[in-house]
Amino acid sequence: MAYTVVGKSVTRVDAVAKVTGKAKYTDDFSERDMLVGKILHSPYAHAIVKSIDVSKAKALPGVEAVLTYKDLPEIRYATAMPGVIEAIATDEVDVAELKYGTAGHPFSLDESHRDKEDRYILTQKARFVGDNIAAVVATDALIASKALKLIEVEYEVLEALTSTDAALKEGAPLIHDDCERNILASGGYAIGNLEEALKESDHVIEGEYETSIVQHCHMENQVSHAYVDSDRRIVIMTSTQIPHIVRRIVAQSLGISWGRVRVIKPYVGGGFGNKQDVCIEPLNVAMSLAVGGRPVKLELSREEAMIDTRTRHAFKFKIKTGINNDGKINGIHITAVSNTGAYASHGHSIASSGGGKFRYLYPTKALKYDPITVYTNLPVAGAMRGYGTPQIFFAFESHIEDIAKKLKMDPIEIRKKNLVEVGHVDLLSKNKIMSCSIRECIDKGRELIKWDAKKALYKEQTGDKRRGLGMACFSYASGTYPVALELAGARIVMNQDGSVQLQLGATEIGQGSDTVFAQMVAEVLGIPMYMVHVISTQDTDITPFDTGSYASRQTYVSGMAVEKAALEVKEKVLAFANRMTDIPAHLLDIKDQFVVFKDSGEQVIALEVVAMQSYYDRVNAQPITSDVSNNARINAIPYGVTFAEVEVDIKTGKIKILEIFNVHDSGKIVNPLLAEGQVHGGVSMAIGYALSEQLLFDEKTGKPLNNNLLDYKLPTIMDTPVIGAAFVEKEDPTGPFGVKSLGEPPIVSPAPAIRNAVFDATDVAFNRIPMNPQRVFEKFKETGLI
Amino acid sequence: MAYTVVGKSVTRVDAVAKVTGKAKYTDDFSERDMLVGKILHSPYAHAIVKSIDVSKAKALPGVEAVLTYKDLPEIRYATAMPGVIEAIATDEVDVAELKYGTAGHPFSLDESHRDKEDRYILTQKARFVGDNIAAVVATDALIASKALKLIEVEYEVLEALTSTDAALKEGAPLIHDDCERNILASGGYAIGNLEEALKESDHVIEGEYETSIVQHCHMENQVSHAYVDSDRRIVIMTSTQIPHIVRRIVAQSLGISWGRVRVIKPYVGGGFGNKQDVCIEPLNVAMSLAVGGRPVKLELSREEAMIDTRTRHAFKFKIKTGINNDGKINGIHITAVSNTGAYASHGHSIASSGGGKFRYLYPTKALKYDPITVYTNLPVAGAMRGYGTPQIFFAFESHIEDIAKKLKMDPIEIRKKNLVEVGHVDLLSKNKIMSCSIRECIDKGRELIKWDAKKALYKEQTGDKRRGLGMACFSYASGTYPVALELAGARIVMNQDGSVQLQLGATEIGQGSDTVFAQMVAEVLGIPMYMVHVISTQDTDITPFDTGSYASRQTYVSGMAVEKAALEVKEKVLAFANRMTDIPAHLLDIKDQFVVFKDSGEQVIALEVVAMQSYYDRVNAQPITSDVSNNARINAIPYGVTFAEVEVDIKTGKIKILEIFNVHDSGKIVNPLLAEGQVHGGVSMAIGYALSEQLLFDEKTGKPLNNNLLDYKLPTIMDTPVIGAAFVEKEDPTGPFGVKSLGEPPIVSPAPAIRNAVFDATDVAFNRIPMNPQRVFEKFKETGLI
Repeated sequence: MAYTVVGKSVTRVDAVAKVTGKAKYTDDFSERDMLVGKILHSPYAHAIVKSIDVSKAKALPGVEAVLTYKDLPEIRYATAMPGVIEAIATDEVDVAELKYGTAGHPFSLDESHRDKEDRYILTQKARFVGDNIAAVVATDALIASKALKLIEVEYEVLEALTSTDAALKEGAPLIHDDCERNILASGGYAIGNLEEALKESDHVIEGEYETSIVQHCHMENQVSHAYVDSDRRIVIMTSTQIPHIVRRIVAQSLGISWGRVRVIKPYVGGGFGNKQDVCIEPLNVAMSLAVGGRPVKLELSREEAMIDTRTRHAFKFKIKTGINNDGKINGIHITAVSNTGAYASHGHSIASSGGGKFRYLYPTKALKYDPITVYTNLPVAGAMRGYGTPQIFFAFESHIEDIAKKLKMDPIEIRKKNLVEVGHVDLLSKNKIMSCSIRECIDKGRELIKWDAKKALYKEQTGDKRRGLGMACFSYASGTYPVALELAGARIVMNQDGSVQLQLGATEIGQGSDTVFAQMVAEVLGIPMYMVHVISTQDTDITPFDTGSYASRQTYVSGMAVEKAALEVKEKVLAFANRMTDIPAHLLDIKDQFVVFKDSGEQVIALEVVAMQSYYDRVNAQPITSDVSNNARINAIPYGVTFAEVEVDIKTGKIKILEIFNVHDSGKIVNPLLAEGQVHGGVSMAIGYALSEQLLFDEKTGKPLNNNLLDYKLPTIMDTPVIGAAFVEKEDPTGPFGVKSLGEPPIVSPAPAIRNAVFDATDVAFNRIPMNPQRVFEKFKETGLI
Repeated sequence: MAYTVVGKSVTRVDAVAKVTGKAKYTDDFSERDMLVGKILHSPYAHAIVKSIDVSKAKALPGVEAVLTYKDLPEIRYATAMPGVIEAIATDEVDVAELKYGTAGHPFSLDESHRDKEDRYILTQKARFVGDNIAAVVATDALIASKALKLIEVEYEVLEALTSTDAALKEGAPLIHDDCERNILASGGYAIGNLEEALKESDHVIEGEYETSIVQHCHMENQVSHAYVDSDRRIVIMTSTQIPHIVRRIVAQSLGISWGRVRVIKPYVGGGFGNKQDVCIEPLNVAMSLAVGGRPVKLELSREEAMIDTRTRHAFKFKIKTGINNDGKINGIHITAVSNTGAYASHGHSIASSGGGKFRYLYPTKALKYDPITVYTNLPVAGAMRGYGTPQIFFAFESHIEDIAKKLKMDPIEIRKKNLVEVGHVDLLSKNKIMSCSIRECIDKGRELIKWDAKKALYKEQTGDKRRGLGMACFSYASGTYPVALELAGARIVMNQDGSVQLQLGATEIGQGSDTVFAQMVAEVLGIPMYMVHVISTQDTDITPFDTGSYASRQTYVSGMAVEKAALEVKEKVLAFANRMTDIPAHLLDIKDQFVVFKDSGEQVIALEVVAMQSYYDRVNAQPITSDVSNNARINAIPYGVTFAEVEVDIKTGKIKILEIFNVHDSGKIVNPLLAEGQVHGGVSMAIGYALSEQLLFDEKTGKPLNNNLLDYKLPTIMDTPVIGAAFVEKEDPTGPFGVKSLGEPPIVSPAPAIRNAVFDATDVAFNRIPMNPQRVFEKFKETGLI
């Protein structure tokens, strides 16, 4: 379809706000006499608090409260009963009742579909280095920090289980008492008869692959402030992707009615899934409650945020693939061990989701996926861009490359042989592939990187610097349907001049969704972008309900709600215009701020005149608004491919990316420049994932070794090549304006593409990332390259 | 009807916020690096600025901008064109285009019904002492004040017209050049044949009555701050009754699209009509624009607020009444001269409205009302509680007392003889009296004050202290229909626990409307008050449209929108419950947080369960909300009466009120305690109006003599008797829950009742208020009492 605003690289609606510093983030807001909260973290990965003495800390002038796990039942009970403020005997509280889950999932009415509740606001048992043992509220940060040092804790130190192997070994101490083993959950799926499929195959090829723990490193650390308002409700302002879920989880953590919590989300400086978890808000609220509801601010330092929020699950995969001589895959068996760290958070969902989204790429007769999610005494893993897919696609897209190598097949051809076709219906999710341009993406990427010419050129390389080409494909999804609820809301208010305000439940967290939504509204209503005012702040009291920003659901799922809201406004405008002109509404359209004849485009009446009449018509006045909710029970599957060219320095183990292209099938692209930005961000994140980033821990003690931005090797601009982004734009029939998702996809396939390029260049197959110089150097020595 | 929450004296929803200081008023908010604006006021009542030199002021360190009338065209033009920020040649701007009207009326599509546009943001011609000549923006208030003193202005001083007589005299200089005389407007109405009616009458009795200029003296002075946001929109936070109208008028004053202005109203510390005018916001915005859109705060001092906002119009009435021996009035002729001061503001609407509301009390065969509204060189008169009715009822209720005295009739009987009956249709407004309990109110008041016993007791008094009884009636209206648009909006969002947020266009300004609306919602939805969370802040970007708080329209007009919104939510709840239980929705009701069988009250399903399902039903999820607008094309006429007993100290002229009762027919009373509070406030305000308050000016220069709370004699608690409030509660069939208005009515009749009591005690008829000791003393001397 031909659009006027959709498909154009209009300037971000928040561009000026952000470059001028006018955009207000959580830390830019302040309440009068706001106190400061600080957390005492456990220095031990696995330990029980034997005794804790807070008397010296409490005595420090300026300290308003010191909290330990002992205080939580009382705070919780007092909170649950409006008006009860006196001290309450707490010995009858069942400690299990104090546990809650932190994962930013929409709630489920089905109890068995809810997240595991294994977290305490403050714990008596430390389960990782950084676990929250106590908290201080003071008049300023310096006093709070001093007070932390005055808290005396006696620990009984237990064995630290710093790997899934250690956690799973016979007789390992239990991290959570209510589990029989240190397993959070297990179970995947099976399609077809795997045994038979393998038996039928000409080859059965096996491989093992491993990914590491990385961290989101969003620019803005977790920060929030909380207080009790005069209505005795809890108000939290926080840097979150999921305000409505924060509301629920804070209420659950305190055992109070959800309506008594109000969450406000201002501008957010990145999240990447880490703010799809409720990390600091319950403790922040507890801090405020401990001081009678006065405002308390809680801000994590980078060092804290890197270990005490969430990380990306490290996975170990074993893959067994049955394949015929012609390259057709008959069956795949994947086992996966996912390291979720000390608490559940998103837990097994990550392993499940990765395995689920993987299915849309290469449908086979038989596919068995056996994941297991294991507790360890490491920081908690949670949601991170890609949500399990960067791991599984690293494994499988490396594996299929290994197979191609082994069978001497062209790596592109082997993939093409197995790729999904439009019309395919996934047996488990029942999602039907309504659009799929993965083949066109591959062709485009192949051309962009000059694959064939370079392949020929690099055929026989020796010497210290060797070049190679690699590629890898992925499939993803647009939102979580049918796994979880996909409810989204939007509200539009039309002003007297025909301009509108757009209120969203979906959160702008840097990804550009506010701009894309504004484009959709401008498109439907025939008005320029400057007449769409997006309310970027979410406030759970008044913002239309939306589960939040995650799962690459905004443009597709929330976009449906936005389009629906805009169409409702348009319908009302045309109905009003009909009342004013007697021209049947179905003959009318809106274009360039005018109600026009749909067919001829001839102007009938200015939008402004209709809008004005809707406010001031003495009989029919009815300002034009819409307030809609949309439950998307559908999904569209985006695809894409990475092509990478690397130069490997054999002597130093340094891998340099010469060229990298991501080509995406994300349906219609609403804003090409923003889309390109998403690709740049995702690919650069993936380059870190592939080559340098890893959160390291002392194997014995579980102490983090590099939880700061100096030692944790995020790629800098010096490490980042020019990133090529391209799109094959075929409109998906289910998406608003034909869109499919694009937020997470760019991160999925670069790592295996880089790995495959290194393999191509050096004949060395790295089955573990990151491929940092040390590891590459060691592997080259091991394989005799040096 | 029997209600559960409506009709109960529940605690105000903002009680805790206000008594704990948690309620945030405009001054409690701050923007980073906010500048301070100050105004240079004219020291002359009538003068032309010959030259103005701001160079010294501009040179003062810390001064960011100095503005005069010369800068406005440029600011205005630059603002009107998004993106145009460079200096613009302004010599082509037509100065007339810079004029705007300030009155807080809903806009009218009919140009002839719009307010007179006669105001400039900054003026070259001062029209009263205090007129805005120049403005300074500086880094702090002290520097701004110093800078004001450095502005050098040369004035050509003109004759100050400090009374309507002076303004109307032949050859008086014109205050506004575009008027032929100093008359803003004239014209009232005529019903029946007055001449004939007077001719038919046994008596034609004449009288003259006069009221003075008083000021609202709300606790919180006018304060606002303004800035340009990153979307290039103008944001204003202000203490106003009418945020949506502020939006319009600021846009009009700058000649920009209305949608480019956003107005936020936090808690407000009283308005009484003075904040139904746009006094400081356009200048505040101009200040911000003069410094590139940086935030600027503008706060008036009490001294400024008392002369440079609005006052109550002083009126002079001449009344001629034709009456028969039996006390039946045949015809009334009222002429009125209203002093609107230097600018139009609400202008002639006050005179018109007073005359309009007066008609509902004593319908007569013939009634002629000839008001004229006159410009003078005094502060601008505008809206104030009662909006013209305290003036006209003071006049007529004094006049009818004089007639009773003259004809030796009982003052109650003469009124009863002429009172309106239910079913009466006003010939001009077409409003039909659907309920009227004025007779019952009179009977109740008579009993409360022990009228008959005391009348007998005080029959023959001599001595220095004499007691007397007086009464006076009034009629009012509920909103402005059919004069103006009565559009109101409400939005309700139901949370997962069945609690709700209520968003209103109508503004809480201290009157208690938020509480009353919450009661209505609680009543309809069968939930307790603590489950209704009222969003007290209005934000024109997202708040449902409502013209604002004035004309005693909230409970009646906005209440209709609230009831409609709640009923829509209820309907959705029952529809959802039907989907869950298959019980037809029409058999269901909500009670005590349960969906119940309407007939038996038997519980069907908890509201919380339905609400939860509405969010998380995998198929039918649709959070329950309503977002309604209601155009009230109807009006309900409230009535009431004051009974007062006074003791007059003949020697000192001091009038002491011994007892005072206001008895109101305001339909159903939603919250008796709040209603009583309204009566207490209105009566105490009326006592000041009757006995002590008057804004005084030097007759020659127009300089204010007592624009401060020390010299302006507001009654203190020492001057205030115990005020009795009583209600005759008959439900009006048109009002939500049977309500009629109550906000302004309490101020209407006390002044004439007190005057009549003094007349009763002393036989001296005061036809001019305030009856302060000096004036009483002089009159007693004049009449020979002393």
